[in-house]
Order: sequence, then C-alpha cells, then structure tokens
Amino acid sequence: MSEAPARRGPLPIADVVVDDAFWSPRRETVRTRALPHQEHQLRTGGQFEALKLAWRPGDEREPHIFWESDVAKWIEAASYTLARGHDPDLDASVDEAIALLEGAQGPDGYLNVHFTVVRPGERFTDLRDAHELYCAGHLIEAGVAHHAATGKTRLLDLVRRLADLVDREFGPGGSCEGGYDGHPEIELALVKLYRATGERRYLDLSLRLVDSRGRDPHYFAAERDRRGTEGFFGPHFLDRPTRPEWYREYVQDHAPVREQSEAVGHAVRAVYLYAGMADLALETGDAALRAACERLWDDVVSTKLYLTGGIGADPSREAFGPAYHLPVTDGYAETCAAIGLVMWARRMGALTGEAKYADVLERALYNGVVSGASADGTRYFYPNPLASDGTVERSEWFDCACCPPNYARLVASLEEYAYTADPDGLAVELYVSGSARFDRDGASVRVSQSTEYPWDGRVALTVDTETPVAFALRLRLPDWAPSHTLTVGGEPFEAPLESGYLVLDRTWAPGTEVVLDLPMAPTRVHAAPAVAAVHGRTAIQRGPIVYCAEEIDNAGPVPDLAVDPHAALRAVPDPDLGVVRVDVDGVRERPIDSLYSTERPAAEPTVIRTVPYYSWANRGKGTMAVWLRESAR
Amino acid sequence: MSEAPARRGPLPIADVVVDDAFWSPRRETVRTRALPHQEHQLRTGGQFEALKLAWRPGDEREPHIFWESDVAKWIEAASYTLARGHDPDLDASVDEAIALLEGAQGPDGYLNVHFTVVRPGERFTDLRDAHELYCAGHLIEAGVAHHAATGKTRLLDLVRRLADLVDREFGPGGSCEGGYDGHPEIELALVKLYRATGERRYLDLSLRLVDSRGRDPHYFAAERDRRGTEGFFGPHFLDRPTRPEWYREYVQDHAPVREQSEAVGHAVRAVYLYAGMADLALETGDAALRAACERLWDDVVSTKLYLTGGIGADPSREAFGPAYHLPVTDGYAETCAAIGLVMWARRMGALTGEAKYADVLERALYNGVVSGASADGTRYFYPNPLASDGTVERSEWFDCACCPPNYARLVASLEEYAYTADPDGLAVELYVSGSARFDRDGASVRVSQSTEYPWDGRVALTVDTETPVAFALRLRLPDWAPSHTLTVGGEPFEAPLESGYLVLDRTWAPGTEVVLDLPMAPTRVHAAPAVAAVHGRTAIQRGPIVYCAEEIDNAGPVPDLAVDPHAALRAVPDPDLGVVRVDVDGVRERPIDSLYSTERPAAEPTVIRTVPYYSWANRGKGTMAVWLRESAR
Repeated sequence: MSEAPARRGPLPIADVVVDDAFWSPRRETVRTRALPHQEHQLRTGGQFEALKLAWRPGDEREPHIFWESDVAKWIEAASYTLARGHDPDLDASVDEAIALLEGAQGPDGYLNVHFTVVRPGERFTDLRDAHELYCAGHLIEAGVAHHAATGKTRLLDLVRRLADLVDREFGPGGSCEGGYDGHPEIELALVKLYRATGERRYLDLSLRLVDSRGRDPHYFAAERDRRGTEGFFGPHFLDRPTRPEWYREYVQDHAPVREQSEAVGHAVRAVYLYAGMADLALETGDAALRAACERLWDDVVSTKLYLTGGIGADPSREAFGPAYHLPVTDGYAETCAAIGLVMWARRMGALTGEAKYADVLERALYNGVVSGASADGTRYFYPNPLASDGTVERSEWFDCACCPPNYARLVASLEEYAYTADPDGLAVELYVSGSARFDRDGASVRVSQSTEYPWDGRVALTVDTETPVAFALRLRLPDWAPSHTLTVGGEPFEAPLESGYLVLDRTWAPGTEVVLDLPMAPTRVHAAPAVAAVHGRTAIQRGPIVYCAEEIDNAGPVPDLAVDPHAALRAVPDPDLGVVRVDVDGVRERPIDSLYSTERPAAEPTVIRTVPYYSWANRGKGTMAVWLRESAR
Repeated sequence: MSEAPARRGPLPIADVVVDDAFWSPRRETVRTRALPHQEHQLRTGGQFEALKLAWRPGDEREPHIFWESDVAKWIEAASYTLARGHDPDLDASVDEAIALLEGAQGPDGYLNVHFTVVRPGERFTDLRDAHELYCAGHLIEAGVAHHAATGKTRLLDLVRRLADLVDREFGPGGSCEGGYDGHPEIELALVKLYRATGERRYLDLSLRLVDSRGRDPHYFAAERDRRGTEGFFGPHFLDRPTRPEWYREYVQDHAPVREQSEAVGHAVRAVYLYAGMADLALETGDAALRAACERLWDDVVSTKLYLTGGIGADPSREAFGPAYHLPVTDGYAETCAAIGLVMWARRMGALTGEAKYADVLERALYNGVVSGASADGTRYFYPNPLASDGTVERSEWFDCACCPPNYARLVASLEEYAYTADPDGLAVELYVSGSARFDRDGASVRVSQSTEYPWDGRVALTVDTETPVAFALRLRLPDWAPSHTLTVGGEPFEAPLESGYLVLDRTWAPGTEVVLDLPMAPTRVHAAPAVAAVHGRTAIQRGPIVYCAEEIDNAGPVPDLAVDPHAALRAVPDPDLGVVRVDVDGVRERPIDSLYSTERPAAEPTVIRTVPYYSWANRGKGTMAVWLRESAR
C-alpha cells in the first residue's frame, strides 16, 4: 500500500482526462469564447491597464479594490486550459498579465493597485472591507495553478513573495497581528500554496487567519477606531435600525469559527471560509474544525439550499437568508456562491469520505453553476433566480466581475471534481466520460468512463492495468437515484453501499468492465412546508438535472401554467436543443384584467414543456419557473 | 344652490361625528394609549429635548434630520383628538411641544434642529436627502390641524413664518430657486395652508415645487456639485452596478411630474407627491396634472397594489417594485405608504367624483392601515407583509418613527374620509355609524348612519332636516359587493349607479330613512397569473375585510395548510376576538424532514380558521398567510 495517498483528495489534473459529450464542448467554449471575451473585458475595462500603476487622481477608471482578483481568476482558468493542450495565444496573454502583475508588485511583495495609487499609505488598514487579502488569495490560487499547468515559476514566485509579506505582517509582532480578511479566500489559497511548495508556514498562516476570526476584542472595531473612518462600504443606513450587529455576521466574524453552527452573511465569503476550514481540518486532523464544517454544511443543506444548488437567498446583501427563506423570482443564488459550494463540497468529501457532499456538488454543478454562463460562453448571470418575470437576462460583464472568470476556472478544472484519490483506491464522484490514472502497488492504473450522462444513466467503466491489481473502486450512488443495477464483467454484482458509495473492493484483471445503470425516469420534487416560497408547487428533476418551464417553449407566460397533479412526466429527447426535455400535461389559465378577482381564472388543457434549468435564457427574454403550480380543480 | 361647495372635498371635521362600534374604540385607544405612548417615546427618545437646541458635537442622541416630522405628526394626531373633546393633559402636552418648536425656530422662520446644531451653515444644501422640506410639510399640516381643532394660532403662525421662508428661498431670486424636496410632503401641506389662510402664494409655491421636479439640468446633481459631497444617504454601493439612475426614480425625479405614468421609487414619497398633485389639480383645474394623477393611480391599482391596500413591495428601498412584483413574506407594504394611499385616494375622489378611489381607500384602511398598530395601540408595524414565517411582530418604536404617529393621525381624522361634500349634495364614502352635517338651501341637514359594518352589511341612514330639502345623496356601492338592496322609507328604491355611487337625487322629507343592504357572504379571491408570488393561491375576503390564517388558530404552522378548492366558506361570529371569523375545510400536510422530497407530503383533513388580516400578530408570534394554498389531490 506504499503508493496509497496519505489522505483523500483530488488527483493531479494531469492524471485526469475529461472527454465528455456534455462537458467537453462547454470547456472548449470556455477556451475559444469565454476566456478571450473575458480577456477583452479586462483589457478594455481597466484591469490590465491599472497594473501599470499609471492612474492618478482625477483620471477615469479608478482601480478598484478587487480588480486583481478578476485578473487572477482569469489566469487561473487559462492555466487549467493550458494544462490540457497548447494554445500559444492564450499562453502569451497569460505571460503578459503575469509581467504586468510583476510590475505592480512592490519590492516588499505587496500587490494591490488600489492601495498603491488611489489610497497609498492605507494598506491593510481596512481589512473588513478592502479585499486586499481576498485578491492575494486569488493570486495565490492562480500562481499555484499556473505553475502546475505550465511548469513556469514566475507567478508562483510572485505570490510566494506576497504570501511571505502577509505572513510577516499578520504574524507575531507584525503590523496586522491578530488581523484577518473581511472576505475569506486566502485561507484555502494558502493551503494550496502549502501543498504546492511544502512550506508549512503557509498552512500555519492560514490556520492563524481562520482562528483570529470572531474574537473579542474585535479586530475590525479596533481597526476602525485606529482609522477613524467607516470602512470602504460605509454604514448601510437602511440596515441600522433592524440589525446593528449584522455586519459581523455578514463577514462570518460573529463568533470563533469553531463555535459557528449557522451559515450566515455573505454567501460567497461564507463558503470560501468554510472550504478553507475543511482544508485545514483535513491537513491538521483538527476534530473541532471538522465538526464546525459538518454543522455548517448540515445547516446549509437542510435549511438554505435551492433545488438548483444555489445558495445565498438575500439579494440586498448577497447573503444567506433565514432558514427556509428561499424566494424564487427575487432570490439571489449568485453564480460564485454555487461555485464556492462546489469547492467546499469537494473538500468535505475528502475530509469525511462521504458521498453526500458530492451529491450536492453535482446538484450545484449541473444546475446553478452551468446556468451562470450563456451557451456561447460570453454572457453571465450574477444571480440565478429560480423564476423570472421576463426581465432577467445574462450580461456581458459586471462592474463587480467575480462570476465570469469563476465560472471559467471551475469548468476548466472539472478534472479536480470528477474523482477522489482514496487511501485504498479511487472514488468516482462525477459520471463524466474520460479517465483517471493513478499508481497502485507499483502499477499504473487507468479507470476509464464512457457515458451519455446526464441524459442517460448508463455508465461503463473499464479498469486498465498491465497486471491484476487490488483496490477499491467507489462509485457514488447519487441521492436522486431510487435504485441501480451494477455489473462487473457482464455479471450482476452486489456491491455494499458505504457512505453513499457502491464499493467494489476486489482484484481487477486488466480490462475489466463495470457497468452502472441509474434509472432516469423524471420525477416530481416537492418542497417541505417550511419553504414558503415554493411549498405546494412541484419541480421536475431527471437524473441530476433540474428542469424549468420557459415561455418560449410554452406559447405564453409561464405563470399561467399549472401542472396536472396526476399526469405522467414524459422524457423527450430534443435534438435541436441538445437536451432531454420533460413534458407534462396541465392547464393554461387565461389572464384576468385586474390584479385580483373573485372569479377563478378560466383554464384550457395544454402540454407543459420543460427544459434543463441550466439552459434557460439562451433564446431571448421570457418568463421562467422551476417550481410550477399544480392545478386544483 | 348658493351654499353648494365650489368643489368636492371633505366636510369640516367639526361637522362630522364618528360614533361607531368598529372605529370609536380604536380612536379612544389612540387617545388613551397610543398618543401617551408616542409622547413618552418622543420625550425619552430625544425629539422633544432636541428642540431646546442644546445638543453639542460629542453628545449622545444626535438630532436626526426627520425628528420634527415625528413631533409634528403627533401634534396633528393630538389636534384631531382634541377637536372631538376636552383632554387637558393632552392639550397641555401639545402646548408644551409647540412652545419648544417656537424656541427652536430661527428669527427668519427656519426650523430644523439637525441643521441648526449638527450641521449649521448647511441648510437647504442637500434637498435630495435631508428632509428639511418634509419636516416643514408635517409642521404645516400640524399647524393647520391645531388651529382648526383648538382655535389657537401659535403653531399656525409658526408654520406660516416657516412657509414664508421657504417661499422666499425657493422663489425667484431665492437661494434655492428651482429646488424642491427629495421627500415630498410639503406640497399637499401648502395646499392645506392655502385653504386655511386663503393666501394664494402658498398654493403657487406648492405648484412651483411640484413643477420643478424631474427637470434637466438636474437640481440635485447641481446641488451635489456645489456641495462637493454625496448626500446624507450616500451612494448605495450595491445598487450601482444594476441601476445607476435609480436614485432619480427613487425620489420621483426622473421626469416632469406631468409626464410621469408609472409609480416608481420610494412608495411614501410617491403617494405624498401624488396626493399633492391631486390637490393642485383640483385647485387649479389643470387637466395635464389630473391626467398624470389618473395614469399613476391606474398603474398602482392595476399592477402594484397588495390585496390589503398595501403598496411599496421592495423592502431594500421601501419602494415600488416592478409591475406585479408583490412578494408576501418578504414584501414591504409600509404602514405609512398605505396611509399615503388613503390620503391620495381621498383627493382623487374629490378630483374626479368617482367612487373607485374610495374603494381602494376602504381596502387600505380596513386592512393595511389598521394592521399597522396593535390592538392596544402601543406597538407598530413598519412593514405589513401578507405572510409571516413566524418571526414578525410589532415594535414599540423605531429609529425612523414615521409610522406610529401617522397611524394615529389618520385614525384620529377619520371624519375627513367618511363623507365628501359635493356641489349637489353629499357622498357617503365609508359606512361608519355617526353623522354628517351640512347646509343646503339655507337649511341645516344631518345625515346619520347606523351600522355594524364591516361585520354586517346593513347600513341605515336617516336624513334629518327641519323642512324638506332637495339634494343628491350618493352612497358608494363598494367594488366588492356583487349586489345590493336599497329602500327609502321602507320601500324598495331604484337608484341609478353613477361613477360607482348609488345616486338618491330627491327631495328629502325630515326623518326619511334609507337602508342599504350589502351582501356579506365571504368570497375567495384569486390573483392574476402575472402576480407570481401568490397566483394559484386563494385569499378570503368578506365585505372590505381581507382574512388571514394565523398559527394560533390552526394548531400548527400555516404553510402546512391547504384549502379544499371546493369547500364552502363559513362566516363565524367570534365574540372572544370581537370579529367575524371565516372557516373553511382543507388539509394539513405533515412536515418532511428535508428541504425537498420526491414524495408528496402526507395530509390529513382539518378546518382552517381565518381572522381579519388587520388583527393579526396580537396574540404572540406565529406563522401567518393571507394567500393560502389550495390542495391539489
């Protein structure tokens, strides 16, 4: 067992191949459309230009506090793409961006254009709001990814100088001793840097930042007093009367992280923090940190999760709402938050070995994440509401452009999410055609997948080795699957179900084929009564795909539709859309010409067509709903 | 016809008596509980104290920009109460407050404590946000009401000095020429002052303020440039990316008022402005202004009105949402906005002679206004959502305490809303026991009402005169009434329906009795499909009263309930609650222990009890819903 990894985690990207009918076109769209589009936006929007440090007061396009993070996520996404194959234009653009970043870095390692040219002398004085450590975290992730993808060290060296500066300033006797970031991100990045470099002090720094949070005396109050002004975002007047303490919750700073039990505040900040905590729990074996992660996870999944895997229901603060508060039309479910949930879920799976985390990962990935970008990769959703009044459409870009490159980097790094290396073998987390390679007992093993998932539930896996090799192959049995059939070498196989995985622990002859078949009958989903926004409605799911009704397929506004509660759901392959549609009988109610009426609206029979939620808003504006009414007649 | 009023409008309060089983206890509660409670809050909260101008930088309780309005509305409410009868303690408290206001007024008439002691030298430099004219408007309303109620002139004299200052500063050559208020209110107040004093320049000033709005070059942009800083409320960072121009709409400053067609922005600001516009249209006969009022009204009523008469669905800005956006749990429907709608509706009725405005007035009054205060008058709702997750309850007070005294002044001035004097007679707008007196052909006429409305639909009216007198008695036929019966002197009477009124145009013998009987069968209400938040649900209404289910009456959470779509609604007098309840058969669904399930929740039969919406949240916290699901089984 000498080659068994010390702990669970993703395989190196280089050992995983994704060659999949669902994902490969999307990844190619990221390479050929999204990354060039985003590069154009960063060049024309000022982010690249700002790195030249030429901005002076009075100039247009004041460098924003979070601009480095946009550049960094784009580099990270590009790096994953470069890891898969040669793309000289992209490679050159990345090198140009890295050279600009080098030029913007100070001799002591500091890098944040805003605090260099707009507010010099104020660095690290507004940690609550000013995003310097958040940007540093994304730069570090980019540096690690770029080095792994290309072997080049320039960006990795740059981010090590930056991380070393943070270590000095935030360590004992540093100017920010006891400080931490208002927008978590650097925690998980420092764990990546530790793993990439073997330097333990990056892990220690991450742990210090995590554990400084939520203490009294309160660092952010003290920094405000030292500064004598409110933070970058200022006091939010309208919030003051109702929740004076909300800002501490907003930045997950209301209690020490080991004591937190409820997911609160800004959703992206939250899941980035929790992902970093899970990494640290895995690295350190800290049981209290793991328990906090598990409590927070349970809170999200049992009270704050949209059916699409979206989180963060409150649009006014991009934040988690109260338990069960999951509004649809006016819900938020930021793309970045679903991505952060995917990141956290992968780490929780590695930490615990339980498949339930990948169940949620899959839900978010195939629904609330993919919905974040248009089919052509150049338009993006920031919020991903589960219903639309017809006014919602994707945008080319945002002033706060966190989501587009985040989408790109996740889709480009799908390799990291498909498999988990395990001390006794390999866990297949996602059913994606391609393969994973690992060493076992001195032999190189490749597990290949072939599937039309998510449209078809048949997954054929082949174990390729030169000689027979013993290991446990774990196949996640998705939580949506009510049953399954499994064969090995063409014969029915009874695999025990452990922690949500079918465990095939055996000696594998070269070329052994495993076939997992998951039933793909569409099902209705009902919400708990506590989910007031959608309770009593029905949603449609088939495999991991959540469906929605769009106006364009239904010859009129979606709110007029009501599903027959007794009608069968019919899966209908739709070659034009490239998806499997689900149709169901129902009624269309005729509009009434006032807001309210004592007459029940008249209704006529109709067939309601639904399409995958992720695909909506690609054919013009119109009403949409995931949760459909049922007719009561 | 010599005594016929020149135009429609309310009778003088002194000529109207309200002696009603529904309203009189509420008005007595305002006198004995609400006004003392509010006075206590104003004394302990700093509003009274601030008027001594003793605050200095560093002191606690910095005088707020809108504190005068709190004091003014309390005085106005107290004045209406004093008009009905002697109350020496209240009278003394009001005189004390007036003396304090006199002490705070500058020699030139200026009165705003914040700009006197906190930001001296900055008066009238931040009209968009700083509420000086808003406070002036409320002071003017208070001055007019106090004079009418008591005959005392101190407060009226004070507000005339203030209005004269505004007239100078905002008139030709004044320091604020072309300026206007970010929070409308003074417009309607100046019309009141014009009517009370006969001074035409107050009307002209009001018209000038209304017509300065929404012009380019933009006054608020120019004042910001002069000032060199953002306004009091600052830039709202989160709003910037999506709607850079929202602030102009927020303060109804996006277009000249005569060109506005859609109700947008802060709901209270909007309806106060529209009420002033309606007053001006009535006084000036300006057809364009009237047409704008009618367009804006139609927009509100056909796209933005809650079933309870609430308006302003967007909690993040206290603002109108888009058309048909009427969320329930997270809706807003501020008490002040419903009150403002009542104020606007009365003026629209006077302007047009159409009963449809009083239909909405009645809906708001009996539902979304009365809900604003607890049964004991000392706790208040700011938002009035149509559903509760169990966390909502009234508060004793608010940092921004606009609603409590607004509720008090409306309930205390119900006389102004019950009847409309008409050139050819009298229109009965509200069915409220009591009477209205007016002169006709040299005779004094009293029309008395006796009714158990809103619980019973029988309204007995008696026309008391010394000699027969000819006039048209108009009885509003409520829009909720599908039929009616009418007798005069005990005989069936066919009255023509004109503009929503049954018109009894005849010569009245002394003592003639008219009986109007309105059917009070409870009915289901359905929402138009466009109202996504509640479409497909059902609400219950009986007469003008909208019902809701509360947890306390239903032995469990309201979201678990679903009404049988075919069951009869049963009106049940409930002496304990002092209301007529409505019960209906339905089912209770059993909770499921996850957010979502492919199993339909199990259900058992139950009787669903509903109570008037206005009465909710008087018996502890619990879930509540106006719009109930229907069972689909």
